[in-house]
Amino acid sequence: MYETYTTIIGTVVSEPRRRQTTTGEEVISFRVACNSRRIDKRSQEWIDGPTLYLTVSCWRRLLAGVGLAVAKGRPVIAHGQIKTNEYVTADGEKRSDLEMTANAVGLDLSRCVVTYQGTPGADRPQAVDRAAEADVAPTAA
Amino acid sequence: MYETYTTIIGTVVSEPRRRQTTTGEEVISFRVACNSRRIDKRSQEWIDGPTLYLTVSCWRRLLAGVGLAVAKGRPVIAHGQIKTNEYVTADGEKRSDLEMTANAVGLDLSRCVVTYQGTPGADRPQAVDRAAEADVAPTAA
Amino acid sequence: MYETYTTIIGTVVSEPRRRQTTTGEEVISFRVACNSRRIDKRSQEWIDGPTLYLTVSCWRRLLAGVGLAVAKGRPVIAHGQIKTNEYVTADGEKRSDLEMTANAVGLDLSRCVVTYQGTPGADRPQAVDRAAEADVAPTAA
Amino acid sequence: MYETYTTIIGTVVSEPRRRQTTTGEEVISFRVACNSRRIDKRSQEWIDGPTLYLTVSCWRRLLAGVGLAVAKGRPVIAHGQIKTNEYVTADGEKRSDLEMTANAVGLDLSRCVVTYQGTPGADRPQAVDRAAEADVAPTAA
Repeated sequence: MYETYTTIIGTVVSEPRRRQTTTGEEVISFRVACNSRRIDKRSQEWIDGPTLYLTVSCWRRLLAGVGLAVAKGRPVIAHGQIKTNEYVTADGEKRSDLEMTANAVGLDLSRCVVTYQGTPGADRPQAVDRAAEADVAPTAA
Repeated sequence: MYETYTTIIGTVVSEPRRRQTTTGEEVISFRVACNSRRIDKRSQEWIDGPTLYLTVSCWRRLLAGVGLAVAKGRPVIAHGQIKTNEYVTADGEKRSDLEMTANAVGLDLSRCVVTYQGTPGADRPQAVDRAAEADVAPTAA
Repeated sequence: MYETYTTIIGTVVSEPRRRQTTTGEEVISFRVACNSRRIDKRSQEWIDGPTLYLTVSCWRRLLAGVGLAVAKGRPVIAHGQIKTNEYVTADGEKRSDLEMTANAVGLDLSRCVVTYQGTPGADRPQAVDRAAEADVAPTAA
Repeated sequence: MYETYTTIIGTVVSEPRRRQTTTGEEVISFRVACNSRRIDKRSQEWIDGPTLYLTVSCWRRLLAGVGLAVAKGRPVIAHGQIKTNEYVTADGEKRSDLEMTANAVGLDLSRCVVTYQGTPGADRPQAVDRAAEADVAPTAA
């Protein structure tokens, strides 16, 4: 009925990949690992808890900022719609993966330091702004 | 660094399965599909958007309520920690799936009607209450 | 830029109130308290943490299910858009409150037991269904 | 029963304020406005939707990164626990406000460009790291 949105706080574990869909739309995608930590009841020490892995896809107005700041090993916070991405391997096997279409992405300031460089596209034309406003990621082809 | 929590609003697509872990803990798990709908830009009609599939696991104080109310085909809302569940198939292949350890589950009142039947375990001993308070799901064995 | 959605797991602390807006739309609203609990570092005992209070508003297809099941004292899980509701008191003072327009509401099965009664409006006309599909709560007047 | 967490995507609308609690803990807090936009059904144009206002508090390992990057007018994404903050005005009136204790904060890369500057406190002592690991914000005094 509804889209499922979530927020991930994790670390980029692949080099971001920039590509074009067959319709000419650009997208940057990268893999994120979100490791949780919890106190072990017996030892009372911090141990690794479950991990969530997923692919984050960034479209449109995320391209400029993400392209310049996101890299393998960096800490990120991202919010977006998650979905099951089903695909068939070269061997003809059905597989699935978790994918987030991001609405907002930031480098996590609890784990890194950044310098603000201003807004992108201060000179971008109105037409683009209006398209960006739709906030709807096109389907990758 | 942090656990990833999310909320799903979807439909139960498998009969809930109740089993015991090797440590004697009971757990109920079921599969949920969350279908999104969106307006197609060209036709201006509602069409299916991406779907999220995952397995929801219910422990401890969720057992009574979920055991009585959740069944295949019913609409649910659930909140909990999501993680990637990695496993090896009988053929020795590595696979992964998305799993939620639920904190709270409800039948979604936007899509069904329920009758309230009171609180479970009004007579359950203090020791159980204290254990339940920890809100930490044990690891399935 | 974006709506803020959240999920609350709490207890209904006011009798739900059903009323009609000036445009004839019906809405049910109730107050929820979400009390957190945490382990005190010194005493190692569970103590009360911060509380979140808010008003939950239920429109359209939530009316049937919420009207029959939600009451003061019952445990709920709800997901929806939160916003700051600004108003002026009879004394002319500006005040603000937190309000959620719910997408989905359930009685929390970790704290109560319910009986499933089927889907509402199996006989409701198409026109209503289509309106409900918009999932957009009208502005209260 | 549970803490309420949410993610906000908005704009900083006050200069961040750095202060010390009576117990000597430092905290940076700032005000955020989250404006939503929606399509008006009649005019089919984008109009302003509801706004959420809240105060975001940043403790411990957020201090370095937030102190250097967050300023009035900048776009942020933040995730944390929200609670109702009740207080009494100088006139003796009871008021309440919404407050988030942030877990993670980032400048939103869909609306600005940043330069990554590395991790803070690469030289900070172990004792601090262990304290930071607790991820529990002390109560402001």
